[in-house]
Amino acid sequence: TITSDLQYDAGGKGEYRHFMLKEIHEQPFAVRNTLEGRVLDGKIALDAFGDNADEIFKTIQHVQIIACGTSYHAGMVARYWLEQYAGVSCNVEIASEFRYRKSHVFPNSLLVTISQSGETADTLAALRLAKEIGYTASLTVCNVAASSMVRESDLAFLTRAGAEIGVASTKAFTTQLAGLLMMTAAIGRYHGMSAETEARIAQALSALPTKLEECLAITQDIEKLAPEFADKEHSLFLGRGDQYPIAMEGALKLKEISYIHAEAYASGELKHGPLALIDADMPVIVVAPNNELLEKLKSNVEEVRARGGIMYVFADRDANFKGDDSMRVINLAHIDELIAPIIYTLPLQLLSYYVAIIKGTDVDQPRNLAKSVTVE
Amino acid sequence: TITSDLQYDAGGKGEYRHFMLKEIHEQPFAVRNTLEGRVLDGKIALDAFGDNADEIFKTIQHVQIIACGTSYHAGMVARYWLEQYAGVSCNVEIASEFRYRKSHVFPNSLLVTISQSGETADTLAALRLAKEIGYTASLTVCNVAASSMVRESDLAFLTRAGAEIGVASTKAFTTQLAGLLMMTAAIGRYHGMSAETEARIAQALSALPTKLEECLAITQDIEKLAPEFADKEHSLFLGRGDQYPIAMEGALKLKEISYIHAEAYASGELKHGPLALIDADMPVIVVAPNNELLEKLKSNVEEVRARGGIMYVFADRDANFKGDDSMRVINLAHIDELIAPIIYTLPLQLLSYYVAIIKGTDVDQPRNLAKSVTVE
Repeated sequence: TITSDLQYDAGGKGEYRHFMLKEIHEQPFAVRNTLEGRVLDGKIALDAFGDNADEIFKTIQHVQIIACGTSYHAGMVARYWLEQYAGVSCNVEIASEFRYRKSHVFPNSLLVTISQSGETADTLAALRLAKEIGYTASLTVCNVAASSMVRESDLAFLTRAGAEIGVASTKAFTTQLAGLLMMTAAIGRYHGMSAETEARIAQALSALPTKLEECLAITQDIEKLAPEFADKEHSLFLGRGDQYPIAMEGALKLKEISYIHAEAYASGELKHGPLALIDADMPVIVVAPNNELLEKLKSNVEEVRARGGIMYVFADRDANFKGDDSMRVINLAHIDELIAPIIYTLPLQLLSYYVAIIKGTDVDQPRNLAKSVTVE
Repeated sequence: TITSDLQYDAGGKGEYRHFMLKEIHEQPFAVRNTLEGRVLDGKIALDAFGDNADEIFKTIQHVQIIACGTSYHAGMVARYWLEQYAGVSCNVEIASEFRYRKSHVFPNSLLVTISQSGETADTLAALRLAKEIGYTASLTVCNVAASSMVRESDLAFLTRAGAEIGVASTKAFTTQLAGLLMMTAAIGRYHGMSAETEARIAQALSALPTKLEECLAITQDIEKLAPEFADKEHSLFLGRGDQYPIAMEGALKLKEISYIHAEAYASGELKHGPLALIDADMPVIVVAPNNELLEKLKSNVEEVRARGGIMYVFADRDANFKGDDSMRVINLAHIDELIAPIIYTLPLQLLSYYVAIIKGTDVDQPRNLAKSVTVE
């Protein structure tokens, strides 16, 4: 197993008011740490996944991802990556759903669990079930080396996020995504993915810590934006493709620590129902649209403009989107679309944090929630 | 093609205040009409799907369902049915997501589109795309015989729901589910499903119109319940397995016509975030839990009881659930679990209707929405 010598600050919150804010700002380091020694000469080091990873990745033809909560969103992003780049089919399912239904097991399937703690009850139960129902092998993406999931899986990718104290997951999520993108390259190597694509993934990953650092420069802009959300009880998050799970994750964060009822939709579904809800009290947040998507959304905006609905669009600076009274554009630096889901996560984490600060909630220990859900 | 001689009341609303209420109450008839001549001697008549259905069902090994909005929820239910009973794998995807990403095409895949109008823009585009990317055949579940989807698909199952005027879909949904359950039996016949299971499905379907009629007896109870929701701005719908999509559909209805921000979660995900939102202003609606689920939920309820959260549980009378101050139980008659998703849809439709009446919204033409989304 590849280890890293990089060290986290011990224990406390340091200069930060909350663990969550510290952990948001630790992400460039946490991702760098997670990559350390695992991306070499434009290739992903297979031993990052454990012994025999090559034998298993060679054999498998299908990936079934199982997770809960934030980890489930990471799995959803991985599905887009695996099908687009690695040439293998992938399904993703919520652990509590998977374990209680009779699902089809594809031949030569790899079961991938994702869990910060490695002890999430439903996910662990699904892992144990998988062995009985015919999965070829199992891999866990996990932050705790001594956990049940690492112990009971054939392969393990250890995120090196360090201790995550805030209940709302931040650096665990982005390091999971980095690990899943590595997994995409590693599996793709045996399924027709070109060396060029693997090199592109390796390059995008190597650039990721710096890009995350640069993205954090947006912190003050987001802090200024937060008051516009703090008096709202609702919001809608829209994304498409691999940004749809990021919209889900952004909405979950706002729920968890800001107690705002935020819900995510795949952008194309807006007209099939949720459009009826939109008014001045329900801001709409759009993540990283491409031009095509934005053109389509604009026609919807026209319909809700009269109702006072306001959109906030997080977009690529190079796309040159023009905002107006009913559409505010927050520009981010241009980056390879491969890592865009990881980058666009940050402003949404910051938004939920600064809204929570204004609302005065207990950011690191939101009401009713536990850090690891080790009971069903 | 099998036709039916049963006739709908022409044109107007008849004795009903709104088309939606008329269409809710037409469901027993609409389902009877959809079944007419198609379930014979404990078997599903294959010509309900068109010529050569046997050849196609014999060949296919995987089903990919594509739909939007309410039809997408019908597709999600069908996935549970197909994998549990028919012995074929099934994926379901939102049309606007499917068409804009590179997805894996399994060998010998049947593409199934679901659409009331047969003209939904994204779904139609996905159908056309499927032909190019290697799907073996296509089948549409559709309510309009002269539609583009029927014309362009290899097979078609026509729901005979009659004209649906209310923008919020009701009878189109339940007849789609009836058709998809027939499809499950018809496909299962060629994939190892026993004759007993097909006979059980045929029997459950044959009983369905009467069971729907009996379920409508709950109308007054739901009308009495509605005032408790009318002043709420939020609610959470929970379901598990094939009732999770029903929870999604119930939440969508409440959004569409009552303008209440209702969101559905797979029950097991409650502890992974949304629990933080629950308070006295956010009622929790639970659809048809089994005992096990309810026991698990009760531990969550304890946590939110102090916050004034109230649960409404729609449950099987035979399960003998006891309500209390923080949990109201609405009992439904015992039915075969095969058709439970179809039956449990009705009280949720009625709930959204009576809440909308109290709120004074335009039930048949909710703001911002069109009946058929024929643009992207």
